[in-house]
Amino acid sequence: MSGFKDSTAIVGIGETAFGKGLPGTELELACEAVSKALADAGLSPRDVDAVGSYTMEATSDFELARQMGFGDLNFFSQTGHGGGAAPGTVGHVALAVAAGVANVGVVWRSRKRSGAASRVWGQTASTLTDHWKWSRPSGLLRPVDEVAMLTQRYFFEYGDGRDALAAIATGQRANANANPRAQMRDKLMSTEDYFAARMIAEPLCLFDNCLETDGAVAVVITRSARARDLRQVPVLIHAFSQGLATGHQPMADFHRAAPLVGGCSAVAAANLWRQSDLTAQDVDVAQIYDAFSPLILFSLEAYGFCGRGEASDFVRSGALQLGGALPVNTAGGGLSEAYIHGMNLVTEAVRQVRGEAVTQIDGAKTCLVTGCDSTPNGALLLRRDG
Amino acid sequence: MSGFKDSTAIVGIGETAFGKGLPGTELELACEAVSKALADAGLSPRDVDAVGSYTMEATSDFELARQMGFGDLNFFSQTGHGGGAAPGTVGHVALAVAAGVANVGVVWRSRKRSGAASRVWGQTASTLTDHWKWSRPSGLLRPVDEVAMLTQRYFFEYGDGRDALAAIATGQRANANANPRAQMRDKLMSTEDYFAARMIAEPLCLFDNCLETDGAVAVVITRSARARDLRQVPVLIHAFSQGLATGHQPMADFHRAAPLVGGCSAVAAANLWRQSDLTAQDVDVAQIYDAFSPLILFSLEAYGFCGRGEASDFVRSGALQLGGALPVNTAGGGLSEAYIHGMNLVTEAVRQVRGEAVTQIDGAKTCLVTGCDSTPNGALLLRRDG
Repeated sequence: MSGFKDSTAIVGIGETAFGKGLPGTELELACEAVSKALADAGLSPRDVDAVGSYTMEATSDFELARQMGFGDLNFFSQTGHGGGAAPGTVGHVALAVAAGVANVGVVWRSRKRSGAASRVWGQTASTLTDHWKWSRPSGLLRPVDEVAMLTQRYFFEYGDGRDALAAIATGQRANANANPRAQMRDKLMSTEDYFAARMIAEPLCLFDNCLETDGAVAVVITRSARARDLRQVPVLIHAFSQGLATGHQPMADFHRAAPLVGGCSAVAAANLWRQSDLTAQDVDVAQIYDAFSPLILFSLEAYGFCGRGEASDFVRSGALQLGGALPVNTAGGGLSEAYIHGMNLVTEAVRQVRGEAVTQIDGAKTCLVTGCDSTPNGALLLRRDG
Repeated sequence: MSGFKDSTAIVGIGETAFGKGLPGTELELACEAVSKALADAGLSPRDVDAVGSYTMEATSDFELARQMGFGDLNFFSQTGHGGGAAPGTVGHVALAVAAGVANVGVVWRSRKRSGAASRVWGQTASTLTDHWKWSRPSGLLRPVDEVAMLTQRYFFEYGDGRDALAAIATGQRANANANPRAQMRDKLMSTEDYFAARMIAEPLCLFDNCLETDGAVAVVITRSARARDLRQVPVLIHAFSQGLATGHQPMADFHRAAPLVGGCSAVAAANLWRQSDLTAQDVDVAQIYDAFSPLILFSLEAYGFCGRGEASDFVRSGALQLGGALPVNTAGGGLSEAYIHGMNLVTEAVRQVRGEAVTQIDGAKTCLVTGCDSTPNGALLLRRDG
């Protein structure tokens, strides 16, 4: 089989409102997002014959299919590893569509986080039987604790970069301020605000952490040939890979000898570029998974946008701003638009490639979307048709 | 993209012993099966760059990768719906390999059922918040209760078929008696034994239910072109589909208006044959998921081996026996070899297509493998190269 490259496209996107305390269940939110995505594509629920989501998704494929009135489904898949999953969910469905196993796929993620019990780190256990026993007793209870450890190591190796993290957080906030869908659309953030915020896990302060968001996001995928007959500018899936590095142990990996080199993002990146006609230099805009701001530093290096240890300087240069060399998280990202486990990065990528983002990058034709740097993850390289 | 058909192959299979109270953890069993599958293929753990398993699998991809010494992984996937999953786990990895996203994939399933807490129906809850609320209050607590309901309906529609179920159970037991790997290799079963067995959920008796088995099974998948240079006769993945019928609600579906028509197997079957050069009449041998014996009746009709309501007569004709029109579950299946959630049906299919089964069907070149009829499921059509 050959020719996966560019053979499928994202043809519809849908989002609920993003906020706290939204009405409705996660299933209702999922249905709203999926309905909007299908309407955006000009397709009917009956056209859907493939679905994909996260293993962490609480709504079931069969419940969604039943409530939405999907057709008979010929493909269903789930992708593990939380925030690392979004590119995989899209990629799996794209593979099925490309191979002719299915015709129209829907990928979705829905979250209502009012109930804290859904968080692993909000739960207690008298015995740890799995890999968490290596980190929990050291006080690494939350994802932010683990990423803070990696960040400490990164700053030790390459110099303190809190000013770079501040630039990421304030830059994405500015993007969110321009975005009427963003949870933080009305909340300004200055560099002073950033440095005045309380520490959550040193060196990461409140504003290095993503939002807590109720909401759902969905995308629709079909073959590129069909996409050209549909309503929207086709956004081709140029290349796709996942990444799980040899020896990696989630959540964040500091069990390997060199935790800042050759991790899951590097694995995904190498395989992505191997399959691509493009290089990092060809990418016009990127949506980089940002549950925590330093993940962006790590990802910039893993995907080759700058050299090892050079990400802080790259950020300081203004590269990530809207007029910069590589605008990143142009809708505000997980830090300031919404945190739908990375799925809202996919929809913003689609808007940028279509040319209809509120912070539209002039002439943007290619967009990279990544999953969580510190977990097993993946990436999608999207590009404009033609 | 075109040409998924026959572009990938199963090149290695591995199994642990099957039994009760096996030593070792599920992870150790998984490693043993994967090691054997890679040795069978003549490949190294470092060659592996894709993995797939069940959402119900308790061992993690990253733990397996770490313990086995896999290479960096470029693809990972999970398939839901329990016993319906096996064809999907193989198919997902095959799609990734066919598209060039990955090169060598491993799929595995490992089970140790000594602890009953892992079974949903062995758990108690004061509140049912999901779809189980539609069936649990009616006393449908176990999968067998749900399948018994479907079987009652089937017998009501098409006539009592307990003798056909007895033929299935005793036929598969005879196959297991010839199979030194089978859990029931030494236990004979006569028709009298079948009818003397206690009822579990009318009309299903003890011998209509699959075994409880500790054990693990793994298969290795790569591109067919590479398979031809490896150690074993390549077993081509000719076609693949999953199936989730419109309106279906697991476990077993009696919420749709016509629960015996157009269900998940029919969905998978239609899409499988659509993609295939072959028809049901071309299939030499079949491994049909058999957590409960009537699932075989339902599947025989869904895949077109006989007409609607004719499966009992088809079984009575001796078709499923080793010399019959469609030998089924030639190693003993879930009823009498081992119940590894359907994965041991895949390995037996590979042996039959290679020509090395202990109950080898002369000249067998094609084998169908199905997932659980009553849940969302799938199918693989395997065939001999050349």
